[in-house]
Amino acid sequence: MENISTTYASIITIGDELLIGQVIDTNSAWMAQTLNTIGVLVKRRIAVGDDWQEIWAALDEESNHSDIILITGGLGPTADDITKPLLCKYFGGTMIMHQPTLEHVTYLFEHVFKRPMPLLERNRKQAEVPDVCTVLKNERGTAPGMLFEKKGKIFISMPGVPHEMKWIMNHHVLQIIQQKYKTGFIQFRTLLTAGIGESFLAEKIKPFEEALPSYIKLAYLPNYGMVRLRLSGYAASNPGQLVNEIDQQFTLLKTYVSDVMVIDEDLPMQAVIGKLLQEKKQTVATAESCTGGYIAHLITSVAGSSAYYEGSIVSYSYNIKERVLQVPDEVLNTYGAVSEETVCLMVKNARELMQTDYAVAVSGIMGPDGGTPEKPVGTVWMAVADKNKIISQKFHFRFDRARNIEVTALTALNLLRKLIVDNH
Amino acid sequence: MENISTTYASIITIGDELLIGQVIDTNSAWMAQTLNTIGVLVKRRIAVGDDWQEIWAALDEESNHSDIILITGGLGPTADDITKPLLCKYFGGTMIMHQPTLEHVTYLFEHVFKRPMPLLERNRKQAEVPDVCTVLKNERGTAPGMLFEKKGKIFISMPGVPHEMKWIMNHHVLQIIQQKYKTGFIQFRTLLTAGIGESFLAEKIKPFEEALPSYIKLAYLPNYGMVRLRLSGYAASNPGQLVNEIDQQFTLLKTYVSDVMVIDEDLPMQAVIGKLLQEKKQTVATAESCTGGYIAHLITSVAGSSAYYEGSIVSYSYNIKERVLQVPDEVLNTYGAVSEETVCLMVKNARELMQTDYAVAVSGIMGPDGGTPEKPVGTVWMAVADKNKIISQKFHFRFDRARNIEVTALTALNLLRKLIVDNH
Repeated sequence: MENISTTYASIITIGDELLIGQVIDTNSAWMAQTLNTIGVLVKRRIAVGDDWQEIWAALDEESNHSDIILITGGLGPTADDITKPLLCKYFGGTMIMHQPTLEHVTYLFEHVFKRPMPLLERNRKQAEVPDVCTVLKNERGTAPGMLFEKKGKIFISMPGVPHEMKWIMNHHVLQIIQQKYKTGFIQFRTLLTAGIGESFLAEKIKPFEEALPSYIKLAYLPNYGMVRLRLSGYAASNPGQLVNEIDQQFTLLKTYVSDVMVIDEDLPMQAVIGKLLQEKKQTVATAESCTGGYIAHLITSVAGSSAYYEGSIVSYSYNIKERVLQVPDEVLNTYGAVSEETVCLMVKNARELMQTDYAVAVSGIMGPDGGTPEKPVGTVWMAVADKNKIISQKFHFRFDRARNIEVTALTALNLLRKLIVDNH
Repeated sequence: MENISTTYASIITIGDELLIGQVIDTNSAWMAQTLNTIGVLVKRRIAVGDDWQEIWAALDEESNHSDIILITGGLGPTADDITKPLLCKYFGGTMIMHQPTLEHVTYLFEHVFKRPMPLLERNRKQAEVPDVCTVLKNERGTAPGMLFEKKGKIFISMPGVPHEMKWIMNHHVLQIIQQKYKTGFIQFRTLLTAGIGESFLAEKIKPFEEALPSYIKLAYLPNYGMVRLRLSGYAASNPGQLVNEIDQQFTLLKTYVSDVMVIDEDLPMQAVIGKLLQEKKQTVATAESCTGGYIAHLITSVAGSSAYYEGSIVSYSYNIKERVLQVPDEVLNTYGAVSEETVCLMVKNARELMQTDYAVAVSGIMGPDGGTPEKPVGTVWMAVADKNKIISQKFHFRFDRARNIEVTALTALNLLRKLIVDNH
């Protein structure tokens, strides 16, 4: 058997905007997931500013920690982008014009961006690269990827624009890593639970956790009344054995949590609902007040959701509740928009209007303003309906506006899920 | 004048979920913004797994880089959370029961979580802390913050749950830093442009950029056909002078970009529209097909949006386009749902149905499936309307589903903004 050692990667993201909080880094999560699929473990992720010394130090440090250093950002055409000249110096090269990249940049400007103006000097400069790198073509943009090697470590620089970075990862980086390293095997199994807190879940599965072999890790990922449990294992060789062992442990884990398990896959709630509805060829509609379209957005973020989702009436005003959802004026005035009476009429009428098997409705006060002593910020009424019944429930959440919207949407989707499951 | 030096912070986030891409880190961005308000510069952000050696190494390294090391995550009640025992060892302490925290945890379980069960041993353990730390009460949860000092550097550990971390930052950390360090002053000015690419914008403001003093930095933050320009400056003392200088430069910058500037504040597009509508006491409604409620979600993510937003008809199916939005069957069958004819009727009828001053409508194909040779994935028709006119436009985006939804929504909101501005 070959001697295979673990391959580690560090991800360095470059840009002042990451350090002043103006941008949230979503690239790193995608990169980590993608590297895991080819058996590379991400050891560290680091963000530094557009600062010569800081970038230099990060390259030094991360090459002590990892075999592969992936770098994103700082490759734009403007003066604040210093990554390329720095990499040129760091790896002891000279900048040269890369003719295929220049042709690609010219093509993009003439045929894709359709600029009437000639190529600017700063756009031509996008095609310059250090002569010590291997150029990785970026079909999606003007800044190419660049591969460097030093002391047995590989360094790959990519633009920070997400779809450009992903293209370069998928079309170059994964193959390069797989050719160069005999990477190991990483296996995950994830299940989703709802309605039980992290501590009580931990207590419930304590015997399982205590008996788990040391090379399989258990993680708790809590999120708004839902907890995902993840088993993970890494094997330098013999992936079949690892898969078998993780599968066995996962089967055992499921017996411990059968009463609180939503699904034995790493799927978000909206995808779970999509699967259930597609299996039964059933449909759903939504009527949203306080979530303002966020439930509809979650449902339609799933590709193929048009097979089971009809639409939403986002009734942000009394007017729309009354005229489109037919909630009578006297109900709104007597009980208020945030009431069991209103939300039950919203769900009933939305289901009838949109002619679906199921409907969900929410009405609440997300804050920061709009609360009253009787109905403070965070008060939410929600209801789900099928042709036979309406189930309504009141909640009180205590987060900020954005989180209140998120937790309301997820809680409503979970109510819907339970109704669908109970009907099956 | 006092001798004041720059105060630097590092942020360490702990958790395997950050390294396998299962969770996107939004805490760091908020922490960085908040530290900037008190004049602390974030130098590095680093993510490491739930791994003893890695966390230890990160504490060592970051204390070489920065004065303040903020640590989030790894404080949960489950076995994968090792941060607390590690910190105890790192700072040479012993674990002791912290009575006020125990009382707080007991209170939370009895009165807030309203658990019928007694406190578990693992919940009691949440109240144990190293005897070498200062406990920072966490009113929002069971894991307290902990402050350590070593070799003149301060280390603060907080839970990773966003609203708990924010509470501890706002109620303890900012004051502690301000008491301990004479922090400097950071000033930002940001403006938003639309309809001009990063390179051409850079060319346009080249004379400005070249004449900018070295202590004021200019950054380009591009995002879907919009570019934010940010001036930033740092002063160890004399904040008044810095504010004056940045204000002067910002005024000058605005003269260069007056024809492409959306707003001279760091506001998202939906907040810009909110401001415009509130000034004029006007209202808007939306009719969304392909964006599936995301435009409504963006608009309602702004607190106070109920003053100008009526609602949305999310017409994900032909059925809802026909029955709720009154787009005739023959139009849908002759021209298709993704057509100028359909989207113009959607916008007109949505505005009339919801009785607003303005309306926006979109219909397109977001992918990955559903494209045809004539209407490939990424084809979008959008329209905006007021009482006098309808303006429609066709686009072709070339991203993945999630990005196509995002760019469609932002482009539609920008069309709406232009219409409102033209009417003023």
